[in-house]
Amino acid sequence: MRVLVVGANGQIGKHLITIMQNNSSLEAKAMIRKQEQAAFFENLNAETEVVDLEQDIETIAKAAEGIDAIVFTAGSGPHTGKDKTIMVDLDGAVKTIEAAKSAGVKRFIMISSFDTRREAIQAAPSSFAPYVAAKHYADEWLKRTDLDYTIIHPGALTNDQGTGNVKAATEVERGEVPREDVASVIAASLENDSTIGKEFQVVTGTTPIKEAISSL
Amino acid sequence: MRVLVVGANGQIGKHLITIMQNNSSLEAKAMIRKQEQAAFFENLNAETEVVDLEQDIETIAKAAEGIDAIVFTAGSGPHTGKDKTIMVDLDGAVKTIEAAKSAGVKRFIMISSFDTRREAIQAAPSSFAPYVAAKHYADEWLKRTDLDYTIIHPGALTNDQGTGNVKAATEVERGEVPREDVASVIAASLENDSTIGKEFQVVTGTTPIKEAISSL
Repeated sequence: MRVLVVGANGQIGKHLITIMQNNSSLEAKAMIRKQEQAAFFENLNAETEVVDLEQDIETIAKAAEGIDAIVFTAGSGPHTGKDKTIMVDLDGAVKTIEAAKSAGVKRFIMISSFDTRREAIQAAPSSFAPYVAAKHYADEWLKRTDLDYTIIHPGALTNDQGTGNVKAATEVERGEVPREDVASVIAASLENDSTIGKEFQVVTGTTPIKEAISSL
Repeated sequence: MRVLVVGANGQIGKHLITIMQNNSSLEAKAMIRKQEQAAFFENLNAETEVVDLEQDIETIAKAAEGIDAIVFTAGSGPHTGKDKTIMVDLDGAVKTIEAAKSAGVKRFIMISSFDTRREAIQAAPSSFAPYVAAKHYADEWLKRTDLDYTIIHPGALTNDQGTGNVKAATEVERGEVPREDVASVIAASLENDSTIGKEFQVVTGTTPIKEAISSL
């Protein structure tokens, strides 16, 4: 399966591509913003393509040609300028979804934030609410398509080494999760079509990742 | 017809309520953010209700009870913080649309910006693009409902006195338009059901407003 990773140069993206390039059934293509970012992926024998998410749908669709699945893990994060929140977390996501449709890529995995429901926008502190809103509308856009989507809602991301064990369900208690484990959850979701049409929260837990994903 | 004006305290809102209170078939209810803003509308014998657009859908829906049409003319404008762009121009608009559905108000008039198409987001200078994107997604959300909507795309707004004459069509050449004339266009649209399901651009022109609206 050839997988385009949008936001490859982020920390989850780098873990994911490392995992995929060590997995015989998954083959990564890294979509990166700058040519300088390519060396990391070339060292893993992963293909790269330089596209800025602020470019148009056609440009993103070209990067998605011949691809079987797209993972959207680009993100300005809650602490960048709110202009980027709109242009990357919302509009960049929507353009990637539209590019998937245009390129005929059915499978789409969205890395969302922990809780993007309407209630979470209302409950968020005012500095965080715009980020939650942007992720909410991106998720809503995806759910209204007929793509084979999976929406992953990770807990608070850490740089700890992955444990290989998580708790995953529609709703779990808020907690932390290493970025490396989130990357493994993405890879496991790509390999398990029972995750199609589902969204789930994931935090560190006691169940091996493939098993946790299988029993969603 | 009882009309809830969301963003009543803005300049278009004030013109609109003045026009409506001098028109026997339209009766305005001003939704305002602060009690201190009420005096202007009380002097026009218009009802007021204090609701902040950052409150939840239920609170907005309560203000819409017994109402026949909603006009959304709230807006942070392109020059406010981008957090407000997400929370007012996009999320505030979507919550108002959802409140209309929840309160059973079918008629909805959206004051958008001049061009909110995908191409306009791509073409906008980077400081302006987040505002265009927010308006784009709000308009898209409205078009995907079964509300009786009209989306008005005014040209560059001025504080000049209204001329009473405009040019209105799906696409017109970019130009200016006084806020007072935009308010008259809204009132004319409320009184003309042929505008339901339509969106149009409007700038200063040579056709009397009611006639311009009738021939859309």
